[in-house]
Amino acid sequence: MKFTITRATFIKSLNDVSRAITTKTTIPILTNLKMDLTDTALVLTGSDADISIESKIDATSEQNDLQIEDTGSITVPARFFTEIVKRLPEKTMTVDVQDNFQTVITSGSSEFKINGLDANNYPRLPEVSSEDALTVPADVLRQLISQTVIAVSTQESRPILTGVHIQIEKGKLIAVATDSHRLAQRTLDLPNAGDASYDVIIPGKSLTELGRTLTDDIENVEIRFASNQVLFIAGNTMFYSRLLEGNYPDTSRLIPTTSTTNIEFDAPTLLAAIGRASLLSHESSNNVVRLSLNIAKQTATIYGNSPDVGNVEEALQFQKLEGDDLEISFNPDYMKDALQGIGGTSIVLAFTAPLRPFTLVPTEDKEHFVQLITPVRTF
Amino acid sequence: MKFTITRATFIKSLNDVSRAITTKTTIPILTNLKMDLTDTALVLTGSDADISIESKIDATSEQNDLQIEDTGSITVPARFFTEIVKRLPEKTMTVDVQDNFQTVITSGSSEFKINGLDANNYPRLPEVSSEDALTVPADVLRQLISQTVIAVSTQESRPILTGVHIQIEKGKLIAVATDSHRLAQRTLDLPNAGDASYDVIIPGKSLTELGRTLTDDIENVEIRFASNQVLFIAGNTMFYSRLLEGNYPDTSRLIPTTSTTNIEFDAPTLLAAIGRASLLSHESSNNVVRLSLNIAKQTATIYGNSPDVGNVEEALQFQKLEGDDLEISFNPDYMKDALQGIGGTSIVLAFTAPLRPFTLVPTEDKEHFVQLITPVRTF
Repeated sequence: MKFTITRATFIKSLNDVSRAITTKTTIPILTNLKMDLTDTALVLTGSDADISIESKIDATSEQNDLQIEDTGSITVPARFFTEIVKRLPEKTMTVDVQDNFQTVITSGSSEFKINGLDANNYPRLPEVSSEDALTVPADVLRQLISQTVIAVSTQESRPILTGVHIQIEKGKLIAVATDSHRLAQRTLDLPNAGDASYDVIIPGKSLTELGRTLTDDIENVEIRFASNQVLFIAGNTMFYSRLLEGNYPDTSRLIPTTSTTNIEFDAPTLLAAIGRASLLSHESSNNVVRLSLNIAKQTATIYGNSPDVGNVEEALQFQKLEGDDLEISFNPDYMKDALQGIGGTSIVLAFTAPLRPFTLVPTEDKEHFVQLITPVRTF
Repeated sequence: MKFTITRATFIKSLNDVSRAITTKTTIPILTNLKMDLTDTALVLTGSDADISIESKIDATSEQNDLQIEDTGSITVPARFFTEIVKRLPEKTMTVDVQDNFQTVITSGSSEFKINGLDANNYPRLPEVSSEDALTVPADVLRQLISQTVIAVSTQESRPILTGVHIQIEKGKLIAVATDSHRLAQRTLDLPNAGDASYDVIIPGKSLTELGRTLTDDIENVEIRFASNQVLFIAGNTMFYSRLLEGNYPDTSRLIPTTSTTNIEFDAPTLLAAIGRASLLSHESSNNVVRLSLNIAKQTATIYGNSPDVGNVEEALQFQKLEGDDLEISFNPDYMKDALQGIGGTSIVLAFTAPLRPFTLVPTEDKEHFVQLITPVRTF
């Protein structure tokens, strides 16, 4: 295998596939990066067994300036190879695989020889058929990911909750995540989905990484499902993730449909106030803030307290308050995560009782996004 | 004590004094920030016993918008107080100390009550006389610091070497640091120093912190010495550091005055090449690169090698090479630190023998700055 390439092009693909490569793997060859060179393209692959990322550099694109001398395959230590490529002195670089998988990287008067490993020992990626493939705008997918992964569980005690539950049926996609203290549900209309019907659980970690690869220059993402894999195709990047096995709990009946107290806030204003109150609650053992709503006086007050450090009290600014008086306590970090996913719009908090879960719904898109937070008993 | 102030002004001073405050102190009250309010100014103080920083906010300056209601003093938990101040909702804030050192911070509709501690229990800062005070341009001092602290020892086995040795005599300042593997010496002319004569050792850590407080808006720094303290006055900030006790080794005869091989490089070009070679040496147990100079062929080649990973060879670009052929091995990290302190100019490396220390001198300022690196025996 031998090729010459513009270093900037190569580094971009290298950065993309490096997201999947970790040093914390039990399969030594996965700390390596794989390069496959055919007559038409150079394909880089990185994998941690859960996530695999392929990036294709097309030989026909003039911009890539890929000059192929000898086709072939090799794997090289990923971290080390990346550091070398980033520090090479010239605009172009040549990679030349010699005997015993020794790989020579030259650029200007600098010549590195590093020990590669046989690409035949690298795990094969699954074949994922293009039948029933879906196409979703990249910005919508990125938003869906950021709005749901916040509620994914980080505890391995119930592995199924570390994933996001995706149901596709009748031209609609429902994504739900919950760690049993809070829940986030995002719905998408898929007018072109036809009869596609899927029910899968994608690891939250995979979706977080996928979100990072969806840069602004990507317009659409194609999604393909296999029995235990999902493949996202974004431009020249193929992102594979394994699926979680098992049954996701039925969350459809958890979201209350009625409420007795409603309050409408500007989301960023509420976020800033919750941030201040959480300064105190973080110093306390139970990390709880208290919200007090008084209908007659039309006041909303938040309290944070730490016996060691002090306390905070703030009269919140709101847009509308109606229903019954209420005192409720909750973990402010759940509220912060929820508000960050909502952005700059208004939101409505809807309560039924001090110890029943309450909902956060943006006023602008109330059919498609709802978050649920379970309060904390403080008495 | 009660005052109202523009939050931005207060935060600037808070950031300055916070540099001295650490949670890793054995004196609990030093995790607190001290505030002293007189009729004319608010003074903030932070300290870790080695370094103390005072920042003065003048009541007469309109820009500060400091409104004094009640003079007095208090100490409050520094990290926590800083987080609160940075998140307050309005442009101004009020601090009001009530009974039992309880401190109330209000801004808009947000009110924090935190538990302070009596300022009388806070250690007093030393009195440092203004006799024989020196004035140095801030940018020169910042450069002197960055060029010498790199060579300070990080090992506590010889505490004296963790400091920079400063000698002032006959209108000249000599700053030297060495960790016994390398040495950096910077000389300054002090035309206005008069008869001032000092011989002190300032902890490298203190100088690094001082360097960070010397922002571009500061023109001059006044330096005052006491028996075991040095005080740097920069604008409204007073920076105190304790001095190291003991005798610094005599370094004046370590720097060779003759050489048998000289090579001149563009410093950034050499730095990039050393960076590449060190990628390999860092993977090896002894972290050494080899430089080979051939006078007849007019070549300079650098080699890095790691048995596990591979090797690198690079023909270096240089400006002038004269003297005897030479093969020398050294720690590339020492060379990187030295070159980073030199910046964008040309430098001359001057060698006497493969196992004798060699010097790095910038061609532009050769009388005032010299660095010494001890080679490594590899056979």
